[in-house]
Amino acid sequence: MMFRKADFKDMDDRFRANLISSLSGFKSANLVGTQDDAGNTNVAIVSSVFHLGANPALIGMIMRPHTVRRDTFENILSAGEYTINHVNHDIWQKAHQTSARYPETVSEFSEVSLTPQWLDGIKAPFVAESRLKYALALRSCQTLEINGVELVIGEVTHLELDESAVTETGYLDIEALGSVAISGLDSYHVTQRLGRLSYAKPGIEPRLLTF
Amino acid sequence: MMFRKADFKDMDDRFRANLISSLSGFKSANLVGTQDDAGNTNVAIVSSVFHLGANPALIGMIMRPHTVRRDTFENILSAGEYTINHVNHDIWQKAHQTSARYPETVSEFSEVSLTPQWLDGIKAPFVAESRLKYALALRSCQTLEINGVELVIGEVTHLELDESAVTETGYLDIEALGSVAISGLDSYHVTQRLGRLSYAKPGIEPRLLTF
Repeated sequence: MMFRKADFKDMDDRFRANLISSLSGFKSANLVGTQDDAGNTNVAIVSSVFHLGANPALIGMIMRPHTVRRDTFENILSAGEYTINHVNHDIWQKAHQTSARYPETVSEFSEVSLTPQWLDGIKAPFVAESRLKYALALRSCQTLEINGVELVIGEVTHLELDESAVTETGYLDIEALGSVAISGLDSYHVTQRLGRLSYAKPGIEPRLLTF
Repeated sequence: MMFRKADFKDMDDRFRANLISSLSGFKSANLVGTQDDAGNTNVAIVSSVFHLGANPALIGMIMRPHTVRRDTFENILSAGEYTINHVNHDIWQKAHQTSARYPETVSEFSEVSLTPQWLDGIKAPFVAESRLKYALALRSCQTLEINGVELVIGEVTHLELDESAVTETGYLDIEALGSVAISGLDSYHVTQRLGRLSYAKPGIEPRLLTF
């Protein structure tokens, strides 16, 4: 079946939000940890995290500070540091619940029973229950003119993960860590590997890689 | 185990690329269809597609035109239109093979045995084998100063998908369509739903949604 641009306009807001947010395919499920100047901690689920470059190690993230999640965005700007923690299948429901609009001074950590974890010198909490987590230093923040969302870019400064996930080639087996994927606004998925494929070259069939 | 920023610098390039590209979690697997002024078609796998907003329906995509995939990027700029097609478990190996560096005048469609599909008035081919695909009009393109990658933003103008995937609420069941997720540079995954959760509110446990 076919939808056209004019059809999107006529849709109910919630229907359109569900439909359009499904188009970009599977998304990563992350908990972003921050702290404000007064020491209040905040943790929020974010599905708009993406790879920007490996050297330097840069991660992008889209935020809608003018609608929801203002605390997280303001803490990032103010502290200049934040953490990203993979959501795994043991904490997916708690992770989802962080999206409720709690008052500014209430920590989602205690509300949803997740544990803040600190590393010396970093002004943002990790999520202890996550098995792959990293701290970032804020490198840039810009408002995208086209619709007013914020593009936040950070550089990875510290990476902590289960050693079992690190393969010989540097590939991290995030499936083995139980990291989940999101589709649409509210659907959570575990994964099953089809395979890893060798670097593609013209005229040569890619072969399955072992770890 | 822990890696620090200084450790990333000392890593072998390929090891670092594998490691850092795993951090952002599961990514969507997409084939981007384009056409040049002379009518040559191009199709390329892209894992950096992300949701930017529902109204208007905006999709972002990161491209590295100064290293690889220059054809796709230039075709988008020149035609002002492109398609994004979900990769599913029937075509994941063909999709991967599109990343080989074929000469400019060679169409990846014929090289990897995918079928271009045309819609009247759109100057870019869809991938017939994909079960969820959409055409976009280029809305903005900017170079991110921090590392020189391009942020390409398009607005969805036409959406074609299997009717079976559309639920009552607008959520699209992309798992049922066989859409795959990517981790790192080369690992492909199918998914298994843990559940959909209701809109989170303070003090109320999210409940599982049915379709």
